[in-house]
Amino acid sequence: MRELTIHLDQKSRTPMYEQLYEYMKQDIQQGRLGAGERLPARRALSQYLDVSRSTVDQAYEQLISEGYIETKPRKGCYVCQIEGLYHLSGDRAPVKHRTEQEKPQYLYDFSPSGIDLDSFPYEIWRKITRSTLLDDKKDLFQLGDPKGDWELRDTISGYLYEARGVNCTPDQILVGAGNDYLLLLLSTVLGPRQRVVMESPTYLHARRIFRQLGYEVSTVGVDAGGMRMEELGESGGNIAYVMPSHQFPLGLVMPIKRRLELLSWAEEAPERYIIEDDYDSEFRYKGKPIPALQGSDKEGKVIYLGTFSRSIAPAIRISYLVLPSRLMSRWESSLSRFSSTVSRIDQTILNRFIKEGYYERHLNKMRGIYGRKHDILLSGLRSMAPILRIHGEYAGVHILAEFTNGMTETEAIERAGKEGVRVYPLSACYQEQKRIKGEQVLMGYGVLEEEDVRKAVKRLEKAWMST
Amino acid sequence: MRELTIHLDQKSRTPMYEQLYEYMKQDIQQGRLGAGERLPARRALSQYLDVSRSTVDQAYEQLISEGYIETKPRKGCYVCQIEGLYHLSGDRAPVKHRTEQEKPQYLYDFSPSGIDLDSFPYEIWRKITRSTLLDDKKDLFQLGDPKGDWELRDTISGYLYEARGVNCTPDQILVGAGNDYLLLLLSTVLGPRQRVVMESPTYLHARRIFRQLGYEVSTVGVDAGGMRMEELGESGGNIAYVMPSHQFPLGLVMPIKRRLELLSWAEEAPERYIIEDDYDSEFRYKGKPIPALQGSDKEGKVIYLGTFSRSIAPAIRISYLVLPSRLMSRWESSLSRFSSTVSRIDQTILNRFIKEGYYERHLNKMRGIYGRKHDILLSGLRSMAPILRIHGEYAGVHILAEFTNGMTETEAIERAGKEGVRVYPLSACYQEQKRIKGEQVLMGYGVLEEEDVRKAVKRLEKAWMST
Repeated sequence: MRELTIHLDQKSRTPMYEQLYEYMKQDIQQGRLGAGERLPARRALSQYLDVSRSTVDQAYEQLISEGYIETKPRKGCYVCQIEGLYHLSGDRAPVKHRTEQEKPQYLYDFSPSGIDLDSFPYEIWRKITRSTLLDDKKDLFQLGDPKGDWELRDTISGYLYEARGVNCTPDQILVGAGNDYLLLLLSTVLGPRQRVVMESPTYLHARRIFRQLGYEVSTVGVDAGGMRMEELGESGGNIAYVMPSHQFPLGLVMPIKRRLELLSWAEEAPERYIIEDDYDSEFRYKGKPIPALQGSDKEGKVIYLGTFSRSIAPAIRISYLVLPSRLMSRWESSLSRFSSTVSRIDQTILNRFIKEGYYERHLNKMRGIYGRKHDILLSGLRSMAPILRIHGEYAGVHILAEFTNGMTETEAIERAGKEGVRVYPLSACYQEQKRIKGEQVLMGYGVLEEEDVRKAVKRLEKAWMST
Repeated sequence: MRELTIHLDQKSRTPMYEQLYEYMKQDIQQGRLGAGERLPARRALSQYLDVSRSTVDQAYEQLISEGYIETKPRKGCYVCQIEGLYHLSGDRAPVKHRTEQEKPQYLYDFSPSGIDLDSFPYEIWRKITRSTLLDDKKDLFQLGDPKGDWELRDTISGYLYEARGVNCTPDQILVGAGNDYLLLLLSTVLGPRQRVVMESPTYLHARRIFRQLGYEVSTVGVDAGGMRMEELGESGGNIAYVMPSHQFPLGLVMPIKRRLELLSWAEEAPERYIIEDDYDSEFRYKGKPIPALQGSDKEGKVIYLGTFSRSIAPAIRISYLVLPSRLMSRWESSLSRFSSTVSRIDQTILNRFIKEGYYERHLNKMRGIYGRKHDILLSGLRSMAPILRIHGEYAGVHILAEFTNGMTETEAIERAGKEGVRVYPLSACYQEQKRIKGEQVLMGYGVLEEEDVRKAVKRLEKAWMST
């Protein structure tokens, strides 16, 4: 065989054997050492290169285990017959640099989705986190129950019963990393070819998720009570997606009569279900919270979806499904092998946050904070009574303003924008191509501070009242 | 209307208005107040009950917003016409108590899936967690990039290039809460009717997940190089699931020749892909780690699946997919709306753990710890050379023991069990009904401590060598 000219760097941080291995691998990959060619005997090579025998052995072993060379008994090492090795050239793909998000061009943004994070109890969260990591050791770092830790599910079911009138056992609860994930999981429980019926207007993010899960999604109109029952009946759908305690975006509360009609619709066929998205029912500024539809469900027809992402913080990737026993046993028989998507550490922290009363305190505090912003916004808008009417107030973190002077939503948004205030088109919550008349705008007050709400409304008055 | 006999408790912690609301709701639900019946005028009722007018107002408002009563202008309040109200009786579902896990009946358990958590750097993890929660405020509690935070993806791609020879940009990485979730997500990217081909034997958990995702799963045999190419070709499948750096359970390393054959198989058709599950390649006790198959992929055919659950701790619910650009753009066009399943807090902690060098130190430490256990186990088993042969050593956290004296798997497991030692049947890793001959057992050494491995092997010697 031809002479190998190998230069090994004694001072390099890369071990000698690795340098030798790399060198020979290159030679093989670039064909300088051809298939079937015999490699120098180990002792000979170690003498030739003046390196220890073990250096050569290690290099050869590595080349053998990666399949570049093979040993033939009593013959020595040979280069393997490998097709398409030219493949293996090429360097690391260049790393594109991250694209910066564009700056907001509005002074005041009434985003309907934002929530107030200034009031998040960082101190307490930190305290609980610290002591949780101190208390527990190994156990917390193990993989937990696929449904979620029993303690957390027990706490959630207790909370849901007290606060939302939801009637379930911990066994009916599935804890998961966010609503989108749980809807993904639910889709595999329900199986393909589901026909989801949503209200129009509705929460379009949920619709996109359903579409991406391959569901057929149709929409029906709403009246003062929410989803129109006749249209639902005619839709041919088998899953009704509703937000009975506070419909998004209209802010309607579904009255008990309609709730019971919806339940009996579902009871008419075994594969009919209702998805109750209880996204922000924690926040109500008049009277007590509206109980959940699930509490009136006696036949196991309501799939209840709740989340802590809105009531605590978006980064808390913990949501939960309350499944009717029939669906839960389906999950158990097929999907129970899916490992939990929430770490036991995070589950323990949240569980303590709730059990030790911090969650309730936090909710009360937020109710106060949102309530004040709500009142400031309302009193401001009421002074524009001649040109607009308010809908969906007293709950959640957004309201609707409907113009009674014929101003279109587009015009209202443009005028507001000129004043540096961002409001959102209601029409964007409709999935139909045919645009609705569009005389209403969405205004979320979660993110803005009280003072900003005050200032923003002043600007809106200027923008909308001036003719 | 008939007299209402209402007893309100001034001393109760429940507000007066709520007591009144509850009382009237009960009356309506139980039919004592019938549909269409007129409620007492507010002022009259407040005088009659000797409560403030606002108490009555609040109670009526709540009943109105929930749809139990309605106001008729200049007429007063009437009970609504509601069908099926009898529905609404019934108390909270009884809470079944959690079922205790049964105690282990083995002294020493060579579980192939367990990992060593005694050596987890709890202190450092706690330190990073604390300072992370101190440093950042609001921002960390916001929802992050659906793909995962750019910083973490950048760190991962750097690590993968250095440690695994994986060639990707941060943009090709999807961070998610665990392998199962990522396979679920992948299934929606690939779409239905995929035909997955796995080796036999293989990692059956992955197979169950594929089946639950509705995939058609077929299996092909393995030889010394791993998946048999002819059988793969005949299988009609379009997705090959392999573990080239350390096949589970056989512990085979796929040689470069077979890797290139696999890649050219995939290149023959656009819808063909290879899923490379690189589940425990961090741990190798001889030479350097075997590079990932992905590094040899020039045509975008390899879907690389990696996780931190095994290399750090199962509770760290952070895994990642490296997608070929073609699949990633599919994800971007359809699924990019799915919110991330990993909290920004956890992503930041992990990112710092890696960037500040703790991950590498941890891996080196674990390599040492697992390596020692590995050596103790091997030297013990080698003393049984006359009756068994060892396979799949020098990597991962498990090995295979094959009996050469005709002892069956079942017999070996029974004998070991009598000595309080648990070993696992290789045949359980085959998906075919027809059992294989079964003369091999799986032995994982991740969980057991060095001393226990020593003691356990002594017992196995007693169990297996005595005739």
